[in-house]
Amino acid sequence: MKQIPVAVIGASGFTGLELIKILLNHPRFEIAFLGGSEGGDLLESHPSLKGVYSAAIEKSDVDRIADRAALAFLAVPHKQATAIAKALLDRGVKVVDLSADYRLNQANYEAAYGVKHGDLDNLQTAVYGLPELVGRAAIASARLTANPGCYPTATILAALPFLPYADLTAPIIVDAKSGVSGAGKQCVDRTHFVNVNENCFTYAPIVHRHAPEIKEKLSSAAQQPIEVVFAPHLLPITRGMLSSVYLRQKAPIDDPAAIARKFYAENPFVRVRDESVQIKWVAGTHYCDLFCRSHAGVLFVQSAIDNLLRGAASAAVANANLMCGLPCETALPAIAYAP
Amino acid sequence: MKQIPVAVIGASGFTGLELIKILLNHPRFEIAFLGGSEGGDLLESHPSLKGVYSAAIEKSDVDRIADRAALAFLAVPHKQATAIAKALLDRGVKVVDLSADYRLNQANYEAAYGVKHGDLDNLQTAVYGLPELVGRAAIASARLTANPGCYPTATILAALPFLPYADLTAPIIVDAKSGVSGAGKQCVDRTHFVNVNENCFTYAPIVHRHAPEIKEKLSSAAQQPIEVVFAPHLLPITRGMLSSVYLRQKAPIDDPAAIARKFYAENPFVRVRDESVQIKWVAGTHYCDLFCRSHAGVLFVQSAIDNLLRGAASAAVANANLMCGLPCETALPAIAYAP
Amino acid sequence: MKQIPVAVIGASGFTGLELIKILLNHPRFEIAFLGGSEGGDLLESHPSLKGVYSAAIEKSDVDRIADRAALAFLAVPHKQATAIAKALLDRGVKVVDLSADYRLNQANYEAAYGVKHGDLDNLQTAVYGLPELVGRAAIASARLTANPGCYPTATILAALPFLPYADLTAPIIVDAKSGVSGAGKQCVDRTHFVNVNENCFTYAPIVHRHAPEIKEKLSSAAQQPIEVVFAPHLLPITRGMLSSVYLRQKAPIDDPAAIARKFYAENPFVRVRDESVQIKWVAGTHYCDLFCRSHAGVLFVQSAIDNLLRGAASAAVANANLMCGLPCETALPAIAYAP
Amino acid sequence: MKQIPVAVIGASGFTGLELIKILLNHPRFEIAFLGGSEGGDLLESHPSLKGVYSAAIEKSDVDRIADRAALAFLAVPHKQATAIAKALLDRGVKVVDLSADYRLNQANYEAAYGVKHGDLDNLQTAVYGLPELVGRAAIASARLTANPGCYPTATILAALPFLPYADLTAPIIVDAKSGVSGAGKQCVDRTHFVNVNENCFTYAPIVHRHAPEIKEKLSSAAQQPIEVVFAPHLLPITRGMLSSVYLRQKAPIDDPAAIARKFYAENPFVRVRDESVQIKWVAGTHYCDLFCRSHAGVLFVQSAIDNLLRGAASAAVANANLMCGLPCETALPAIAYAP
Repeated sequence: MKQIPVAVIGASGFTGLELIKILLNHPRFEIAFLGGSEGGDLLESHPSLKGVYSAAIEKSDVDRIADRAALAFLAVPHKQATAIAKALLDRGVKVVDLSADYRLNQANYEAAYGVKHGDLDNLQTAVYGLPELVGRAAIASARLTANPGCYPTATILAALPFLPYADLTAPIIVDAKSGVSGAGKQCVDRTHFVNVNENCFTYAPIVHRHAPEIKEKLSSAAQQPIEVVFAPHLLPITRGMLSSVYLRQKAPIDDPAAIARKFYAENPFVRVRDESVQIKWVAGTHYCDLFCRSHAGVLFVQSAIDNLLRGAASAAVANANLMCGLPCETALPAIAYAP
Repeated sequence: MKQIPVAVIGASGFTGLELIKILLNHPRFEIAFLGGSEGGDLLESHPSLKGVYSAAIEKSDVDRIADRAALAFLAVPHKQATAIAKALLDRGVKVVDLSADYRLNQANYEAAYGVKHGDLDNLQTAVYGLPELVGRAAIASARLTANPGCYPTATILAALPFLPYADLTAPIIVDAKSGVSGAGKQCVDRTHFVNVNENCFTYAPIVHRHAPEIKEKLSSAAQQPIEVVFAPHLLPITRGMLSSVYLRQKAPIDDPAAIARKFYAENPFVRVRDESVQIKWVAGTHYCDLFCRSHAGVLFVQSAIDNLLRGAASAAVANANLMCGLPCETALPAIAYAP
Repeated sequence: MKQIPVAVIGASGFTGLELIKILLNHPRFEIAFLGGSEGGDLLESHPSLKGVYSAAIEKSDVDRIADRAALAFLAVPHKQATAIAKALLDRGVKVVDLSADYRLNQANYEAAYGVKHGDLDNLQTAVYGLPELVGRAAIASARLTANPGCYPTATILAALPFLPYADLTAPIIVDAKSGVSGAGKQCVDRTHFVNVNENCFTYAPIVHRHAPEIKEKLSSAAQQPIEVVFAPHLLPITRGMLSSVYLRQKAPIDDPAAIARKFYAENPFVRVRDESVQIKWVAGTHYCDLFCRSHAGVLFVQSAIDNLLRGAASAAVANANLMCGLPCETALPAIAYAP
Repeated sequence: MKQIPVAVIGASGFTGLELIKILLNHPRFEIAFLGGSEGGDLLESHPSLKGVYSAAIEKSDVDRIADRAALAFLAVPHKQATAIAKALLDRGVKVVDLSADYRLNQANYEAAYGVKHGDLDNLQTAVYGLPELVGRAAIASARLTANPGCYPTATILAALPFLPYADLTAPIIVDAKSGVSGAGKQCVDRTHFVNVNENCFTYAPIVHRHAPEIKEKLSSAAQQPIEVVFAPHLLPITRGMLSSVYLRQKAPIDDPAAIARKFYAENPFVRVRDESVQIKWVAGTHYCDLFCRSHAGVLFVQSAIDNLLRGAASAAVANANLMCGLPCETALPAIAYAP
């Protein structure tokens, strides 16, 4: 019954693991290729999979991938994705790129990442893979989707229903908090247990590379330039993300939750809550939970997502579903890890 | 396709939630009754289920349960299970009791819990629900299984393959560590975040009520009286359990891992590892991971399980599977929450 | 050499412990009375003090306190402080009240706490114990100081230098995060380890009782009404607090750090940093660390404090120092618990 | 009043920081030299010290150290200490070595560390710096003390009072648990937050290098060869250590706590408790807390220490105190970080 062969490039990382976990339960996708910068045994990277699934991680040769897979997930560092994506697209393989390489327009990309973009042709046609923003149809017809960053996903989903109600001449304030898995598997000072545990701090406030992504996408949605003041924080937890979004209102808003509910009426994976959202209620799932409250002319909207799922792997599978003609929600994880 | 209606009594607790999570993915069981000491909305107890599953928690009326369910999981405090179990068995409902009420023989129970046992008839026929210890056939023919405690599960699975190799005139030493979810949902000093976080300590060392359970079951398996020195610790984590078991060897053991592998050859949910086991590799699953090493005439065997799953809910579903003629492994969770 | 006898009322709580820890190292204060709602052994409440200090906790009889102490720290729940404070002041004992009872003006207090204020006379003369806001002289001449709340301390210290530069017709946005010790020693759902661990969420956003305190004090400092949008979060850590304050600027600000440094030039326990502040760098100390950055007409100021010290106990000692004619900084903890 | 100039070599690490924190409060030692493998600003390594203490970290030139300091603390990796220690001793500087280089006899050292020992002369005269084991007089007359490892400290202090009561033909079983700071400041897989958080596992069980240290010292104390089965675990906490020690008794022991209390009667920094020990009660202090219970012919003794203090820095200061003719307890931290 599994008919669509897919590749996961970057299988040894956290996002690679999450992709594999979803794909193992997917009724229509089957894993046809696991790629990495070096070959190796999947179980060495992910010992939890012992007895569940065993496979080799292979060197990411594009011809081999194209031989075996109809669609590839790229979970590789930014700046490394363009070369692989271009080669795969040339060989007729659809691509969901989880790196930052196709998220921004050329000018914003080059300013944020300090390099020339390596694949301008495909950048023109890449679709930003946030269905709530661009529509499912746009993704369904795409050959290349740029999976959104985790902070932008959480923030845009919070802000989007309220753009028509907001005075966008005032900057949107985003105070966001992420678990450590968002920083990847590599050991650096910022991921050392002792530096994270019993601690909390902002990193790269204002200048974080997700700020231009939020700004570009919200400006485009609102069709007017929007400023964003963005302060990302590291939380002493493994997975999950909260984004507090503060918008200046144009006029009093009676029932912001009703606005959000109406906006997301067709989106079962957005839950608008009457009480504060909690990371624990979404960790392990594709859900984005929202909570909103208005005070003193300011709208406070808070979103909670799992940074590795809705902020990466399950969002990628949702895009792949659409690109392959499957229902968007196919195999997206819905049962949280709570307690 | 779901044909066997089951009840979960104690649906508002942690174990209740884990049972529901497994049952929602179960191909043959369907939830027919959710019971609690008070009625209420399931989502108030478990907000993470919003959009996934909605149901009422009802007062645990035995007639109603018997009307609707063929089998009931009892996730209620010890001393409260006998009354419900007895009434349900009388009405032809099979019971998997997750409390301690049917785990011990009368003498041990009354010594450990300080009360007369309330249902001696069923105690005689209750089967201790650890298939690796009693055999799958015994459980398959039971009407009442006593689901083992979490510490006993982890400890017995570690010790069992090695009983023939151990000098059982020496006490078995068990230094075990559990996540806080094992203490239940109630707020007490020992579950206050500030008391647990950045801390570790034993509680009820030697006299913990799981000690007689380990002792009775291992003695019975070895057909000789065994002494156990048991020190349970609280870890500052939510879920998971490690049990370090130290056995005095009768004679040198060349390759303890080979002994364990052979013993568990037919048990896909026991994984014998060559490297140290880790809680993270089993959390979210029914797996029991084992690691063993021999030194100076002592065999060190360490097991890792998820205390809420292999130590409670998924073990209960495995028992229910057998009691209903299904393959033991049906719907048992295998993919860990890692990272 | 220790000449000034002081009382700690509420000795069994977290704040009581912190007060005792500071007082044990204080060159001029000596503990003359430890009070609680029930009597008992101090070591039962705080086993870490074994061998360091032993004393009885006595019932808080005001005559006995007045017999023995020249100044009393009240670390009791709000609504309970007024009766004790009044009686002690009548008996000539100076009072540092760590509850909320004397922090707000009558109208704000009665609106926030839903009761008539129990001691209007002393409320008139009580001094808000934040030296950076009211001046050391005002505290030095007070008989009763109202120790500020932890969130207000962190927030006011962040905002204060910038009030002249801010457009205060726009609400001040405060996104704050606190460790669990701020919720006190009592076991409630919100302090259960399993609910806090691997989680983060706002509680009482907008309507938290510290919001009117922040609003009243900043409005008074700015001599104009200020609106505050306040979202407090619970962090899965024991101690520490971050407050992100977002202010709309009147005009571009070149070097906000220079403004803050100048403002706090005489305050050794405020450190203005060039890099992001971290909870770990202040936990265990009286320091308030500040970081500021301007973007798009918004000033982002973040403060870090230890909620139990600068947000409670060490602030109380600083006030007591001033009220007793000692240098403000006497015995305030400066060496962090890091790593 | 501070008259004895001391050097801290390895000032940028966790142990270096703890040494500095103690020395800043020491009435007789003053910091005369801070050394590192590279020079730099102390505040870059330890931003929490801003405003408290500022100094340069200098390259560890032995002549310069000898010019300025009468005693040096070496907090450098093993294998690197011998060269520095030898040179400093040659120049008349006393040395407290916190590395493993002088802890073991030659044979054990070379077996455990796989290299020839680099300074056999001083190895002969080095004194193992555990006063409870070797006596204060031996340390007082030493020019070089080898500061014990953290696991050996916790374990030996637990076992020592009971050696005369134990059947030492049976191996001593040690199930120990440590916070992550014991692994040092370097970022490696084992210190990555995601790998530690919500996890627990043994590392290097049986073969950990602290096993021969425990074995050598206990054998020497008992004057008979002792076997040790040692399983060290990593806890998801920053600081603190528990060691569970299981001894086979020669004969029934009525009141093990009384034995321990008598043994440590002269040691104020060993506290024998009637209830289970907790890491939180010793973290931040030089205390070693003990709890003991006898069952089935086995004695269970559990110790709790702060691995960075009693297991490293404060133990080093205690040794330095003795070596400089000061009371052993001078400036040792006694007030825990609790809550």
